[in-house]
Amino acid sequence: MKPDAAKNVLHTPLSEEDDIFFMKKALKQAERAEKIGEVPIGCVIVYDKKIVGRGYNRRNTAKTALAHAEITAISKACKKLGDWRLEGCTMYVTLEPCQMCSGAIVQSRIDRVVIGAPNPKAGCAGSILNILNHPGFNHQTVITENVCSKDSTDILKRFFKGLRKRLKEQKDENTDQEI
Amino acid sequence: MKPDAAKNVLHTPLSEEDDIFFMKKALKQAERAEKIGEVPIGCVIVYDKKIVGRGYNRRNTAKTALAHAEITAISKACKKLGDWRLEGCTMYVTLEPCQMCSGAIVQSRIDRVVIGAPNPKAGCAGSILNILNHPGFNHQTVITENVCSKDSTDILKRFFKGLRKRLKEQKDENTDQEI
Repeated sequence: MKPDAAKNVLHTPLSEEDDIFFMKKALKQAERAEKIGEVPIGCVIVYDKKIVGRGYNRRNTAKTALAHAEITAISKACKKLGDWRLEGCTMYVTLEPCQMCSGAIVQSRIDRVVIGAPNPKAGCAGSILNILNHPGFNHQTVITENVCSKDSTDILKRFFKGLRKRLKEQKDENTDQEI
Repeated sequence: MKPDAAKNVLHTPLSEEDDIFFMKKALKQAERAEKIGEVPIGCVIVYDKKIVGRGYNRRNTAKTALAHAEITAISKACKKLGDWRLEGCTMYVTLEPCQMCSGAIVQSRIDRVVIGAPNPKAGCAGSILNILNHPGFNHQTVITENVCSKDSTDILKRFFKGLRKRLKEQKDENTDQEI
């Protein structure tokens, strides 16, 4: 670990094994979203090799767009560390963050974001925009992509396949009733 | 008012007078931030000509970057309306939203954002990026700028002038002690 003299912030290096270990913890969070019927996205925030914040998508359950996995994890990490600045922290998230979560990562000054699967339709770590690394802002975040990407994609595919099946069954049922 | 047949969403038109009226309410929120020593930024969200969410910057007090005026107002509006979708809503905010808040506005599908003062260093309604109107996202927000812009700028100027003065006095005091 490398202490930041000015602010006593630890910049503890994380190995590839650490990245896989913590992304699996984020995948566990995604499973919690899946269990309550939410799009399965999970996130953990790590400081000095310890998890300081966890979150999973609860947008429909909580009835607020703010209940994305990353926002919940940031909120918890800030409480745990007692600071709005999450310097020295690494975020692990199963899906590339949206514009809101990428913005919250920059505002919280998170050092590094490790991403499972890309989000070509809405991602803001390079897919639609790169908010995490924009030179116009006062903070840039290091990005590591494709860590446990198959597991991160598979859980989403399984969820949407199930959703389509349920919607088709509902439609068929309604058609039967009409006949 | 114009109801949206599919979702029972009201799209009540707001006049220039309404815009000034509600921006003054947002300025009242900014004053609450100023009173507790926070950068004075305030916000209200309006649905069917009624305020459904209020917020003011509390980043240092709450020790989280999520405590921006807009995020607090969105959280409260979602609770009040019982939905993560804030369709039919207009946000009034005294300073151009940052990347996080602009992202949250798009994620919440707010119809329109009325802005007091521009934020050339970090604004994402056109200054650094235009997240509110990006064609790559699944929602675009109408922007109205420069409503009560002098009042919105003046409260910020006053705050930073006071802050610089206090810092100078502190520095002078420390120098005196050293001598």
